[in-house]
Amino acid sequence: MDVYEKSLKLHYDLAGKIEVVSRAKIDNAEDLSLAYSPGVAEPCRVIAKDYEESFKLTRRNNLVAVVTNGTAVLGLGDIGPAAGMPVMEGKCALFKRFADVDAFPICVDSKNVDEIVDTIAMISKSFGGINLEDISAPTCFEIEAKLKERVDIPVFHDDQHGTAIVTAAALINAIKLTKKPMGQLKMVINGAGAAGIAIAKLLIQMNFGEVIMVDRKGILYDGNPDLDPAKKAIAKLTNSSKMQGELADALKGADVLIGVSAPDTVSKEMVESMNEPLIFAMANPIPEIMPEDALEAGAKIVGTGRSDYPNQINNVLAFPGIFKGALSVRAREITDKMKERAAIAIAEMLPEAELRPDNIIISPLADGVADAVAKAVADCAIEEGVARI
Amino acid sequence: MDVYEKSLKLHYDLAGKIEVVSRAKIDNAEDLSLAYSPGVAEPCRVIAKDYEESFKLTRRNNLVAVVTNGTAVLGLGDIGPAAGMPVMEGKCALFKRFADVDAFPICVDSKNVDEIVDTIAMISKSFGGINLEDISAPTCFEIEAKLKERVDIPVFHDDQHGTAIVTAAALINAIKLTKKPMGQLKMVINGAGAAGIAIAKLLIQMNFGEVIMVDRKGILYDGNPDLDPAKKAIAKLTNSSKMQGELADALKGADVLIGVSAPDTVSKEMVESMNEPLIFAMANPIPEIMPEDALEAGAKIVGTGRSDYPNQINNVLAFPGIFKGALSVRAREITDKMKERAAIAIAEMLPEAELRPDNIIISPLADGVADAVAKAVADCAIEEGVARI
Repeated sequence: MDVYEKSLKLHYDLAGKIEVVSRAKIDNAEDLSLAYSPGVAEPCRVIAKDYEESFKLTRRNNLVAVVTNGTAVLGLGDIGPAAGMPVMEGKCALFKRFADVDAFPICVDSKNVDEIVDTIAMISKSFGGINLEDISAPTCFEIEAKLKERVDIPVFHDDQHGTAIVTAAALINAIKLTKKPMGQLKMVINGAGAAGIAIAKLLIQMNFGEVIMVDRKGILYDGNPDLDPAKKAIAKLTNSSKMQGELADALKGADVLIGVSAPDTVSKEMVESMNEPLIFAMANPIPEIMPEDALEAGAKIVGTGRSDYPNQINNVLAFPGIFKGALSVRAREITDKMKERAAIAIAEMLPEAELRPDNIIISPLADGVADAVAKAVADCAIEEGVARI
Repeated sequence: MDVYEKSLKLHYDLAGKIEVVSRAKIDNAEDLSLAYSPGVAEPCRVIAKDYEESFKLTRRNNLVAVVTNGTAVLGLGDIGPAAGMPVMEGKCALFKRFADVDAFPICVDSKNVDEIVDTIAMISKSFGGINLEDISAPTCFEIEAKLKERVDIPVFHDDQHGTAIVTAAALINAIKLTKKPMGQLKMVINGAGAAGIAIAKLLIQMNFGEVIMVDRKGILYDGNPDLDPAKKAIAKLTNSSKMQGELADALKGADVLIGVSAPDTVSKEMVESMNEPLIFAMANPIPEIMPEDALEAGAKIVGTGRSDYPNQINNVLAFPGIFKGALSVRAREITDKMKERAAIAIAEMLPEAELRPDNIIISPLADGVADAVAKAVADCAIEEGVARI
């Protein structure tokens, strides 16, 4: 059996990868009177008087909604809300496994921004945080922005920000190892979807250097009238020389290639044209260029999204700890600075002495990552004044 | 500490009465590749091709949403969605404890029927069933009816139907014990809210006899122009002689009083005017008449909602098994007949030899109730052709 057949069998055997259990013992009449009627009236009354107590008296103190509409699931595209659920349940299982954060999957049966925002806002008082997942661009940007206005709990689109944080973490260690000049990197991002745009923003915020973005139609430049609003906005922040052309043009002399696009879109010749290249080819399951080819073409470091190659750039390094930290201080949002600090915390999980070209980022299965990220995020929330406790 | 203080402390200690855990082992890279990427793509693809497989491959095979808007929580009234959550979490804990059914609490932040229906319908593909809870009448009737049209999973408003089922179960045993004539009972229901109307409908459907309903303004009769639509409809099915008057008038010569109204609304004189009275005084926490007073006034049998008196009429006898049965055969709805069969199954849990005036219904903590109810409900669903497997 291959990994797909094995996984299907596992899914039939498990009949669901999450389970909702009781934390309350209910063995006798007294238990029933405390966990339920009549005693339960008292926590209800306390919350009715002071809404903030809902974050102590109910599970929302440690509970994230993993929300999708199934429009951009893995590499499968728009498969609909019900079909997206195995991924969402998997994500919830990872939240619990890596950060002891409870997460519950919600699929929303709509592709309309306002319907989706209304639905999530309406149920938001059931949760402590909202993790948006596998919602296609550009809808996802609008949903995230509108939802942040509507709810009083943190909203985080993992495909954007989780990917950006872990990419930044890998890049921190890659330039540490290769001694490339921080602040003066020339970085090309191939793919201008949700992930690509978020990566660009975070790398710019963290002052790595100059970013050039490329999509299927070529290099993004300010002034191109054919771009959608999200691409227009990022074109203003990138490609300061307003270069036009193809991916191959952008890559000439570049230090870094970050691929969040499609399989086999980068050739060995392109890598050869770069400057001591750092390659993060994260298309899944088949990267933009296979690691062996990139190395042959002169890449100094290669990372992918795959677990069967070195340097796996995996969001699971970020999202569990991000929410654990945000929930621990009842942060009202997850700020850009919190994302930056999370990236630094992930990078620092790997001691400098252990840095090697095939070991620039800690394993997703390593212990302690979520706690380190949570601490960085919580500390930052307090410093920035977005923590409520 | 009284029960309220103890319960509050328990709620602070537990920080949530439910918990979402992982059913998948995630200890190494292979686990990760099966529970999550890339393997998880396969169950996604299978569901995308055949929607029904979502009831096997995800937790919705055993998962109920417990949904409220917090408008009629316990005896506390309209305390809002966040404040209603301790009750919903309690309900979810009971689902798991008594039937091993997973249940997850969702509070909807709206009092508008269409907003609530839209919200629940939008997220319904995340669940296998929907248990409506503590939503005020008459909104609850409209929400239930509209939702049933919109979703492909069973919808059940426990305050209506759960209460009706357990009341009917108690009444079956009470007339067995007292040898009152089935089909010829004169029954008065004091309270014409969600529970009262549902009880009336089920008792009529099960041919117990004639029902007269009474609300704060007096006896409900067909032709009264002041009634809301739900009360108008039930007035047509009850009180065939179109009697007018007060509760005291209705009770003269009646066999059964079912109270789902308010504390202290029934006097000893009223009970004395009845015919070998069976009294179910279910206002919570203080019944319509205290059991000792009802017995002094000649009641043959008294039941309440309380655990500290005999004959506790408690919904927990019904809802866990109802959903367990419905989910087990992927029933597309919970029909009136299924409710009737559930009531009979609950009644029969108490062997005839053990029937006594202070023991007409099985304890909510007894073993095997949910399984017996589930079997009755599943069998009935298959007979009625609403089962999908």
